[in-house]
Amino acid sequence: MFAYKGDVLHTPTPDRFEVFEDGYVVVDDEGTVIDVVSSLPKAYADADLTIVDRSGCLIIPGFNDLHVHAPQYPLAGLGFDYELLDWLEKYTFPAESKYADLAMADHWYRRFITAMWSAGTLRFSAFATLHNESTLRLMELCQQSGLKPVVGKVNMDRNAPDYLVESTQASLAGTEELIRKSRETTPDVGFIVTPRFVPSTTEALMEGLGELVERYRLPVQSHLDESRDEIAWVRELHPDVPSYAEVYERYGLMPRNRTIMAHCVWLTDRERDVLREREVWLTHCAQSNLDLSSGIMPVRRNLDAGLKVCVASDVAGSHEPDMNRHIVMSVEASKAKTFEAGCERDRPLRLSEAFHMATKVPGSFFGKVGSFEPGYEFDALVVREDESPLDLSPQERLERFIYTGDDRDIKERYVSGRLIPQPFEDER
Amino acid sequence: MFAYKGDVLHTPTPDRFEVFEDGYVVVDDEGTVIDVVSSLPKAYADADLTIVDRSGCLIIPGFNDLHVHAPQYPLAGLGFDYELLDWLEKYTFPAESKYADLAMADHWYRRFITAMWSAGTLRFSAFATLHNESTLRLMELCQQSGLKPVVGKVNMDRNAPDYLVESTQASLAGTEELIRKSRETTPDVGFIVTPRFVPSTTEALMEGLGELVERYRLPVQSHLDESRDEIAWVRELHPDVPSYAEVYERYGLMPRNRTIMAHCVWLTDRERDVLREREVWLTHCAQSNLDLSSGIMPVRRNLDAGLKVCVASDVAGSHEPDMNRHIVMSVEASKAKTFEAGCERDRPLRLSEAFHMATKVPGSFFGKVGSFEPGYEFDALVVREDESPLDLSPQERLERFIYTGDDRDIKERYVSGRLIPQPFEDER
Repeated sequence: MFAYKGDVLHTPTPDRFEVFEDGYVVVDDEGTVIDVVSSLPKAYADADLTIVDRSGCLIIPGFNDLHVHAPQYPLAGLGFDYELLDWLEKYTFPAESKYADLAMADHWYRRFITAMWSAGTLRFSAFATLHNESTLRLMELCQQSGLKPVVGKVNMDRNAPDYLVESTQASLAGTEELIRKSRETTPDVGFIVTPRFVPSTTEALMEGLGELVERYRLPVQSHLDESRDEIAWVRELHPDVPSYAEVYERYGLMPRNRTIMAHCVWLTDRERDVLREREVWLTHCAQSNLDLSSGIMPVRRNLDAGLKVCVASDVAGSHEPDMNRHIVMSVEASKAKTFEAGCERDRPLRLSEAFHMATKVPGSFFGKVGSFEPGYEFDALVVREDESPLDLSPQERLERFIYTGDDRDIKERYVSGRLIPQPFEDER
Repeated sequence: MFAYKGDVLHTPTPDRFEVFEDGYVVVDDEGTVIDVVSSLPKAYADADLTIVDRSGCLIIPGFNDLHVHAPQYPLAGLGFDYELLDWLEKYTFPAESKYADLAMADHWYRRFITAMWSAGTLRFSAFATLHNESTLRLMELCQQSGLKPVVGKVNMDRNAPDYLVESTQASLAGTEELIRKSRETTPDVGFIVTPRFVPSTTEALMEGLGELVERYRLPVQSHLDESRDEIAWVRELHPDVPSYAEVYERYGLMPRNRTIMAHCVWLTDRERDVLREREVWLTHCAQSNLDLSSGIMPVRRNLDAGLKVCVASDVAGSHEPDMNRHIVMSVEASKAKTFEAGCERDRPLRLSEAFHMATKVPGSFFGKVGSFEPGYEFDALVVREDESPLDLSPQERLERFIYTGDDRDIKERYVSGRLIPQPFEDER
């Protein structure tokens, strides 16, 4: 049994940070949180307890990022004078095509995983590319790293350049093969079914993927209502389906409480009902939505509608993986919506809410993750102490880390109670 | 004579980057740019020319930040669930009061200057506090660092807490003393007259400061039209003056082509006319204006009105000093304004424009600074080469640096042709 000592903060509920100054997270040998306390009760003194003393540091849940494109990491920051569909054609598709080369994929996927580790993103849901070998390699590298993401081969069989498209059959067969192989070789890295988005997948492909989802009881991730041009395109492609969201639903690609839909900037109320009923995780990618001029999700409205909204990076529709910066951007975008559109007046997102949306809400996709309540896995970041001329509370020091910190401020990362060193360092 | 070799980029005009791939900036022994060329003409081969080979790196103008609060640097990121006036009371004023202690000021001003150096901000216009000794110390430390900012003692004689206010006479006398002392001891660090903002300064103080501005031919910096509550307050205090801007003008605090006005989020057309006529630099602090829920400046409208608009940090109304991030935030805020308020449709700020607003426009406050045109001072950053799976142009590499880079990517900093090492490192 271990007791991690430091200034412990988490958000069991979104309305406020729960703070244990000079407190302890007590964790069992399997890495499960038993208790979080301000001082150690007598009972623990008698137990076989190792104190891990991080006094003066913050101990917070690790970040969970439910929307990231692993192959796009080296493009981050390119092409933001374009909007979504042009940007895909000009930057994303050419870059993704290079992952046909396994050695190239191996090199850049190592860098991607290291970037996630650096940023304190301990679990994530990643799009790979359509290439089977390099997608399996990404999963194997994740397994080596100690991080616990899910990863999907991207399915595309229409409306993509010749160099980045598969036949329906090849796409389905490759997917099923990866599902099986990864079950053998990457026990901590799950497979997630990943149709790129409706315009990239024929009805036959969506139908086949829906069958795989059911047969293997898999989760699904895709894009929904990101930009207005994209929505108009989906309407043209599927005039018979009443909404974009319902296209996924129709083909079995919205399994209840196992689905992630990225962006959801322009949801209709009808779609809100679908997403709530299906218990979908919506990923709010505020930085990406500004970078690509897509819009700003009305977060408050979605929260009030009872939807599960997460903060996510969408690297490389956005320019950086760091979840602390995405927490900040979510708050800033919410403020912009308040005073520009006037639609959220008086209730911009508060910091504790955005933190909750980057830890506990997306963590729940992986089970009991993203909080230090009893029964949760001990996924944690140890953030170094910070000098200040003011006498700051732990919560103010956490604010400083979220707004100004970077990878240099994170001293340690734990996944399920296990200390995770920098991946691939010993190979350099 | 020196020729700095690398991928040279700058923005003589806002509409595009001028690029010299594998080019040269030729600089004379006084640090003035003679020429920027794609290959060295024969004439130079015969001259006494030292090649400084930075092949594979980007060579760009240094950043100039016309609005930053030096004492607030250690607060960056605190209190952004508050709006401006509450945030001033709760965080800013208590923190600034601590600069009465010279040793404390010395410590934190060194860290502030190092942060500016790290971020590649080679010139800036800083608010200090109202404390005379520590303000002089800030100027002396800047002089030691090799950076070339202007600095002002903050004037406040009303509407401030007891612990952070001076009498009108003390404020004026202290200002004049600092003007004289700094002229003797800090030749590269100018003094700038710095009334905090209208609500903090009585008419007598503004009048006295206006006389100093005229007598010593000094520049002025202050705040204007940042938040709606502040504007309402100014209207109450000066019901006889038709606009906030005209209060400064009335008291001689808007000398032509020597004035910086921070924020200007809520300008009226009448104020636009005043600022254009006075040739004022407007600082657009997009991150601060979102963090403190102040609003978003209609940048396009101000540019179209012929105003000089800069990108600035406003640390610590914002959370970070890095000008590359403020360039990005200006672009993002402009996009938000486009699709939320609809008022800038079709013309969000482009990257070259925002870069121009962080280099050449604010540089012009200091003379010929912020560009590599002949006659400009060689203020430059050398940005390290970046590995990529794509074959990127120099402009795309610059985009990557602006969006994703940090201090670790800046290899060298030059001011007026002089290489500036990390300040105060040898004292540690």
